[in-house]
Amino acid sequence: MNTYIYGYGPAGKERLIVVDLGVTFPDMDGSPGVDLIMPDIEWLESNADRIEGIFITHAHEDHIGALAHYWPKLRKPIFARKFTGRIGALKLEEAGISANEITVVEPRPHVISLGPFKVQFVPVSHSIPESSALVIDTPAGRLVHTGDFKLDGSPIVGEPFDPVMWHEIAKEGQGIKALTCDSTNIFSPAPGRSEATLAEPLAELIAAQKGMVVATTFASNVARLKTLAEAGRAAGRQICLLGRAMRRMVSAAQETGVLTGFPPVLSPEDAADMPRHKLMLIVTGSQGERRAASAALSRGKYLGLEMKEGDSFLFSSKTIPGNERGVIRIMNAFSEMGVEVIDDHGGLYHVSGHANRPDIEAVHDLLKPRAVIPMHGEHRHLREHMKLAQSKGIASEVATNGTMLDLTDEVPQVVEHIETGRTYLDGSVLIGAMDGVVRDRIRMALNGHVLITVIIDEDDEPLGEAWVELMGLPETGKRGAALADQIEEELAEFLARAPEKVLSNDDKMDDAIRKIARQVTMEEVGKKPEVTVVVSRLIAA
Amino acid sequence: MNTYIYGYGPAGKERLIVVDLGVTFPDMDGSPGVDLIMPDIEWLESNADRIEGIFITHAHEDHIGALAHYWPKLRKPIFARKFTGRIGALKLEEAGISANEITVVEPRPHVISLGPFKVQFVPVSHSIPESSALVIDTPAGRLVHTGDFKLDGSPIVGEPFDPVMWHEIAKEGQGIKALTCDSTNIFSPAPGRSEATLAEPLAELIAAQKGMVVATTFASNVARLKTLAEAGRAAGRQICLLGRAMRRMVSAAQETGVLTGFPPVLSPEDAADMPRHKLMLIVTGSQGERRAASAALSRGKYLGLEMKEGDSFLFSSKTIPGNERGVIRIMNAFSEMGVEVIDDHGGLYHVSGHANRPDIEAVHDLLKPRAVIPMHGEHRHLREHMKLAQSKGIASEVATNGTMLDLTDEVPQVVEHIETGRTYLDGSVLIGAMDGVVRDRIRMALNGHVLITVIIDEDDEPLGEAWVELMGLPETGKRGAALADQIEEELAEFLARAPEKVLSNDDKMDDAIRKIARQVTMEEVGKKPEVTVVVSRLIAA
Repeated sequence: MNTYIYGYGPAGKERLIVVDLGVTFPDMDGSPGVDLIMPDIEWLESNADRIEGIFITHAHEDHIGALAHYWPKLRKPIFARKFTGRIGALKLEEAGISANEITVVEPRPHVISLGPFKVQFVPVSHSIPESSALVIDTPAGRLVHTGDFKLDGSPIVGEPFDPVMWHEIAKEGQGIKALTCDSTNIFSPAPGRSEATLAEPLAELIAAQKGMVVATTFASNVARLKTLAEAGRAAGRQICLLGRAMRRMVSAAQETGVLTGFPPVLSPEDAADMPRHKLMLIVTGSQGERRAASAALSRGKYLGLEMKEGDSFLFSSKTIPGNERGVIRIMNAFSEMGVEVIDDHGGLYHVSGHANRPDIEAVHDLLKPRAVIPMHGEHRHLREHMKLAQSKGIASEVATNGTMLDLTDEVPQVVEHIETGRTYLDGSVLIGAMDGVVRDRIRMALNGHVLITVIIDEDDEPLGEAWVELMGLPETGKRGAALADQIEEELAEFLARAPEKVLSNDDKMDDAIRKIARQVTMEEVGKKPEVTVVVSRLIAA
Repeated sequence: MNTYIYGYGPAGKERLIVVDLGVTFPDMDGSPGVDLIMPDIEWLESNADRIEGIFITHAHEDHIGALAHYWPKLRKPIFARKFTGRIGALKLEEAGISANEITVVEPRPHVISLGPFKVQFVPVSHSIPESSALVIDTPAGRLVHTGDFKLDGSPIVGEPFDPVMWHEIAKEGQGIKALTCDSTNIFSPAPGRSEATLAEPLAELIAAQKGMVVATTFASNVARLKTLAEAGRAAGRQICLLGRAMRRMVSAAQETGVLTGFPPVLSPEDAADMPRHKLMLIVTGSQGERRAASAALSRGKYLGLEMKEGDSFLFSSKTIPGNERGVIRIMNAFSEMGVEVIDDHGGLYHVSGHANRPDIEAVHDLLKPRAVIPMHGEHRHLREHMKLAQSKGIASEVATNGTMLDLTDEVPQVVEHIETGRTYLDGSVLIGAMDGVVRDRIRMALNGHVLITVIIDEDDEPLGEAWVELMGLPETGKRGAALADQIEEELAEFLARAPEKVLSNDDKMDDAIRKIARQVTMEEVGKKPEVTVVVSRLIAA
């Protein structure tokens, strides 16, 4: 959920630009039921009057996913290049916001002047078209924000990384004061490989298959889609794209002219009529997402198409840590169908979109920044990147979420930690990660939920017996009797004996009932459940 | 949750032996709140009179973890070698079962004769002492069950893999009819490496550290614990073991004589008094388990010991797929403390306990079985192993959970699929995976839970208004009002208008109220919650 803010001006009154408004994805472990995780932008919202504009480096969800959700809170001009702008426009329109809020800009040498900032988009190679670094000039010096990037001289779709242009950028004026730099692959020791190296292995692989071939990759990796489609065509196969995200990306890339020469595609209906050995599907869901096309095919027929013994399924992708369970589930489902599952074969059928350690070093050497601020990656990645920079005599500082760095002097200084965190899109509303809503869900999932209702009459006497409902708890306890009955019995005993001062006091009733329910449940089934107590009091007419 | 059954005799009346009774571990995605997952042994239980005995190949939880939970349902003699037997005895005693139920047996040439079976334990190398294959002779021929194994000629602790002995086993009598063989590492293309290769890199690594060194590995990898401890001692450090499972494994290995020469260890109290550069902790929790020592240290002080800037933390282990999130969380917590986190460096500081593909091929070649039944691993591993065997002209069949194979003829035949599944240990009781208990927990975690109580008087008229409690749902909806209030308002309207035939009918009331609650929640917060409705009826005195 990348969101970076640059400021220039007197302390506390800096003019600001926002770079990216990204999301991250929920999981059962920490955020069950949540739809999207976004940065908590409370500080940004309360300083919205100081924002000059919002810049989006590229159209990956972790950089653009929160744009439509947060724009209504910020209402500032958005700047992006054409493909990114097209994806952003689709998001805004879905949220009922005019696509005109986005200004589509040309790359360097075009300069966007905003308050004290002069900003240029500089093409870099990545796993989506038009990924861009930003060169941000301020009266105090030049900053470079790399965005996500790799060093690829032949990225198939989109612009190559251009060392000559970057050399110029580093030489102009006083050079680069600070480089905010991608750290994702800092632990990958070998130089990164070009997207172009995949064409031959993929073509050979697909030519060798006998049945239907299905390949999955990230929907936004338009270059890979093209390589895969061309490999399929070279093997005499017709291409069909499955999955809304993928069709949307290809359309946006074609409409904005960044993708040309993509082979014609079949509709799923027409694909279903093709002989299997003449067909190749390129599908969404490389990360095992339950609703994507890969998962759907692993469960059976999808849009009239079905995997069979002798077919092949290729993961032209890497599993992002945390997604292993979902991916493995799909692999095994295909294996059970007799489908040949092919993974990236140690990189033969997939390359990363991020600069590896030697590439990052090369960028340090090329740009000669006076300071490096590592970004993108977990804390251990940022720390490793900082150590790399420092080992070469470059000032560096790890900035965790909420950190404000002062870049005025040669060595970056941490000047403030802004209270920040995560905001959840939960259904249709935004909630704070610490609001307790999700905590309660996790507790119910771990402990089960006991509901108890008691009616107290006008004289503060129990009317009838307590009623117990269980959800997510074993029906039967150790002694072989129904757990709900056991709790009800204990509560009946309690109610029969409870003194009036307890019966007349809601808090005391709640505490006592809760305690009994937890005790009985612990004894009977060994769990301490969540308990909701409803005491209804009849009021004298 | 490995559990294998071999039978000999007339169809439906075969005498049986059970090999291993293992568990697997729950996760939030599929089994929140569950303590352990065990195989559903209903079939085995209903055929308990046919069981001759239970054999445990080694003391890993996925082979022995269900022993104490299921023994009371089977009550048959247990056979294991001494270290495995010791771990099994501890489990039985904790469950109040006599350790005498376990017969500790010597390895081949010792033979256990049980009904039509003659069984020998044959030492194999693995990542725990005394892992054993079983040679099972029946009147119909010889079967070999490898258990977990690797080809290691110098495993540090325990017996090496002995090709000469295996050559004899293959030559005796009619040779090997069928080989049930470990498939875990079938996708690892290089030959496996010996445990002994780790001694030098680990010693060098630890000698190079300046602060406190903490290493984690699987508690049961006694050989690794010894290598780590010796590397620490060679670097002038005192050793302290943290984590109950680890101390238990080392004690059991020492008591049974399989581990000798382990350096003396400090108590945590004494360790806390040592200078940091003189101390090495070896701790549990290599898989990121929240309650283990690694996770505890990542959260702060644990038993008086605390990680600090300049310390090192070594994962002498591999992350099992599915555990990445927990491991990464710990890595980043240490990174934030300024601790150097060192992973297995591509195998430099860890080797697997399983045979790789070329090792598996070597075993096929050595044992010359007439059939191979792949075991251990997911479906895709079993299938790949089957294909490997078939490619060399060996009959092979994938047997998924519940499959009964007939090995009488030269080619294994699937003859039956026995209804099977998973049983959960949930708190202190066993529940079926399909009982709906865990399904309800997952639903509450995804959707939240609405509790509604309504009181109906003696005349079938609502008494007061409906009361709504929420758990795991946003408090405030789209329109800015409290969600509970909104549902209550809608319910008030419904109750005011509901005809008597609805008010007097519990099912109709329940349906109508549930529908309203879900509708309002959907409109307000975009979620379809779980709903529990309690209609209390006052009965005329």
